[in-house]
Amino acid sequence: MAIRPERIVIVGGDAAGMSAAAQLRRMRPEVEIVAFERGHHTSYALCGLPYYVAGYVDDTAQLVARTPEAHRRNGIDVRLRTEVVALDLERREVVAYDHERHREYREPFDQLVLATGARPRRLALPGRDAAGIFTLHSLEDAEALATWLQQERPRRAVVVGGGYIGIEAAEAFRARGLETTLIEAAPHVMPLLDPDMAELVEQALRADQVTVLTGTPVEAFATRNGRVTGVLTPHGEVPADVVVIGIGVEPNSDLARDAGIALGDRNAIHVDQHCRTSVPGVWAAGDCADAYHRLLGRSVYFPLGTTANKQGRICGLNLGGRPARFPGIVGTAITRFGETEIARTGLSEREARESGFSIVVGNARSTTRSGYFPGASWMTVKMVAEEGTGRLLGAQIVGGPGAGKRIDTVATALTAGMTLEEFIYLDLAYAPPFSPVWDPVVVAARKLAREV
Amino acid sequence: MAIRPERIVIVGGDAAGMSAAAQLRRMRPEVEIVAFERGHHTSYALCGLPYYVAGYVDDTAQLVARTPEAHRRNGIDVRLRTEVVALDLERREVVAYDHERHREYREPFDQLVLATGARPRRLALPGRDAAGIFTLHSLEDAEALATWLQQERPRRAVVVGGGYIGIEAAEAFRARGLETTLIEAAPHVMPLLDPDMAELVEQALRADQVTVLTGTPVEAFATRNGRVTGVLTPHGEVPADVVVIGIGVEPNSDLARDAGIALGDRNAIHVDQHCRTSVPGVWAAGDCADAYHRLLGRSVYFPLGTTANKQGRICGLNLGGRPARFPGIVGTAITRFGETEIARTGLSEREARESGFSIVVGNARSTTRSGYFPGASWMTVKMVAEEGTGRLLGAQIVGGPGAGKRIDTVATALTAGMTLEEFIYLDLAYAPPFSPVWDPVVVAARKLAREV
Repeated sequence: MAIRPERIVIVGGDAAGMSAAAQLRRMRPEVEIVAFERGHHTSYALCGLPYYVAGYVDDTAQLVARTPEAHRRNGIDVRLRTEVVALDLERREVVAYDHERHREYREPFDQLVLATGARPRRLALPGRDAAGIFTLHSLEDAEALATWLQQERPRRAVVVGGGYIGIEAAEAFRARGLETTLIEAAPHVMPLLDPDMAELVEQALRADQVTVLTGTPVEAFATRNGRVTGVLTPHGEVPADVVVIGIGVEPNSDLARDAGIALGDRNAIHVDQHCRTSVPGVWAAGDCADAYHRLLGRSVYFPLGTTANKQGRICGLNLGGRPARFPGIVGTAITRFGETEIARTGLSEREARESGFSIVVGNARSTTRSGYFPGASWMTVKMVAEEGTGRLLGAQIVGGPGAGKRIDTVATALTAGMTLEEFIYLDLAYAPPFSPVWDPVVVAARKLAREV
Repeated sequence: MAIRPERIVIVGGDAAGMSAAAQLRRMRPEVEIVAFERGHHTSYALCGLPYYVAGYVDDTAQLVARTPEAHRRNGIDVRLRTEVVALDLERREVVAYDHERHREYREPFDQLVLATGARPRRLALPGRDAAGIFTLHSLEDAEALATWLQQERPRRAVVVGGGYIGIEAAEAFRARGLETTLIEAAPHVMPLLDPDMAELVEQALRADQVTVLTGTPVEAFATRNGRVTGVLTPHGEVPADVVVIGIGVEPNSDLARDAGIALGDRNAIHVDQHCRTSVPGVWAAGDCADAYHRLLGRSVYFPLGTTANKQGRICGLNLGGRPARFPGIVGTAITRFGETEIARTGLSEREARESGFSIVVGNARSTTRSGYFPGASWMTVKMVAEEGTGRLLGAQIVGGPGAGKRIDTVATALTAGMTLEEFIYLDLAYAPPFSPVWDPVVVAARKLAREV
């Protein structure tokens, strides 16, 4: 009897799954790799969707980092439009449904990678299914919304939800010249920021004529002839010709749960730092899984493309025979609204207090370049450190062009466990077109160091 | 007999000296602080001079962070146009010469801070003193050059020296529309970069129509009626209506040397990490002094405004009674030519080899934003790591807008002693307007990690 080659099955053809596949392929040319993807595309940039809607990117094809054909040329058996509908862990098989040929079949595996991603949280309200209401979580979503904008020429847009997607959708609508209202149920937009920093984002939204309604739950959608005409709130109806709902995502972990694989924070598939699930030979990575948080010392659900790529690589390395461990996240994230850059890393003031840290907190306002240099913009840095020790715990930045990526310096420093005193003397790059002589993140640290 | 208050004398009224003074004043309101400055200004941004010449900054007053009057209001006895001409360490006095009143006097001190800065290296060649030849090291220099540009309307500019000041002067001349030639004696511009990275800078210069003559020593200046008309090289004469010489600086350490204070690397005043010189009660900081290099484990002369501010602060803290230690530099620096950003940190390939490290070296080309995002520019990252351990030793970056300040992430990581493997998994900020999903510095680290 011939020995059949080891077969690795990957469920989900985006960042995490295909990173794992590519890494594995590089290390072990002999294994069979089968990747199931229920959609039409592989390896596409989910984070680029709002910018396609804005019109900054002409064609969704540009958002595809690697096509199914490219993966196939790399020896990966990509099966598009084929959904894995069940896992049979006892027989080591997946049950797949081919949406093109309308047939179900089983595929055996030796090892399995779950990279099923996340889905937008549903807003189960009257009128939700009316035409003109969109989410923004797939190339198809983005194309449908762009088509609506072109064909229906809406004038008034409403964004439901003030997180990353909401902010980016608001930029897209403003870039298209629509009257835009952003509705957020919580007291402030950007729940990953503290309220004082979120207010700066709200100011930027309003400065670009976005109507920001915070503390405003949505109750229903008004419709006429099956099309959305408005969004109903306790304070009245907001007229709308187009709506984007971006109220967060939840992990696609149903398959895993139904197969008895352990779930963790917010029902994400729980993985250890090697990306192993609770079942031997079953791995998970990306937006369907949790990730170890270095500062919290436990796994949390914090889905981001950059983590998906890293976890995918970890899976691939481990499957390829080189033991690899994901050291974890520190909660870094970034976005922008127009020219206003918004970034955070580590723990917010709220998160740090909720996690039981004794903290000191401070803000500093500075400029992105030397104050006299053309193009210098204001930026605010909020910093959180541990009381007594001065250990850095987190930072938040809101400011003009050049402000946001400074968060990386803080992310690196808190990964290294630096204190404010150590941070203050970092040898950061200074020249007038790039920074004041004390970088704004250091200005914040200096101010805070006095209070430790 | 009344106890007279302690008197601190500061020699030099720019970044280092006045940082020390301000920090000390904050901590000890009772001490006398006397600051001697031989020029007309205090606390001005030397690094901004080229941008004033370029016309980006209207008035040199904008480059003054704190005027003498502001310092005086803060209780610092600033004595302008007064040069300290000798130190009498035995009597604990400085000998000062007042250039306004043409008189010399002595001033006693209890503690002394030397913050005498640096001076441009001289090019002692025939014709050097002709009109139209400038250096760029003081507000007066910059004003004189700007006046020459306005009044003489030169057409052809020559920059002698391809370091930071040379590159920045070339930008200034191009911004003013002058035909510009940059002459560098070494085989490449930017001696702080390795040749392969310096070539990218040369390409950027040439792309903006700067004639770059490398490997070309200057032999003399051609003059007519006391005005410069050209620069003579072994390959012929380069016509010039205006010349800037920027061939580096040397420390103003003569006072210290003459008083018997120990000098270090390149004749800079040697200080320990507390900014103490070899003589008790005499401190030094800034461009006249050396600085401890964390990676080399010894002190080097690497004069920069940002270090001057930090060392000044260290002096001030120590004088104020709070023991403070400067952890040192890692050799970070940044500049730009037009839209091309140039940065480095740690050790270059050459420096690492010269210091006896066994190293691996790699380059990676990537983009400042996601490739599909408008405004994405190419950028190249060169990275140096220790063979075997993979410990990060340095990086160099050349690329478009947004490239340069990424060096801070590397500077922070190598301060923390991170390896390439640790660096790869840093939780850096990703969104399409800011970065590809793997940040370019991480792309370089990933590539290099395969070779450790």
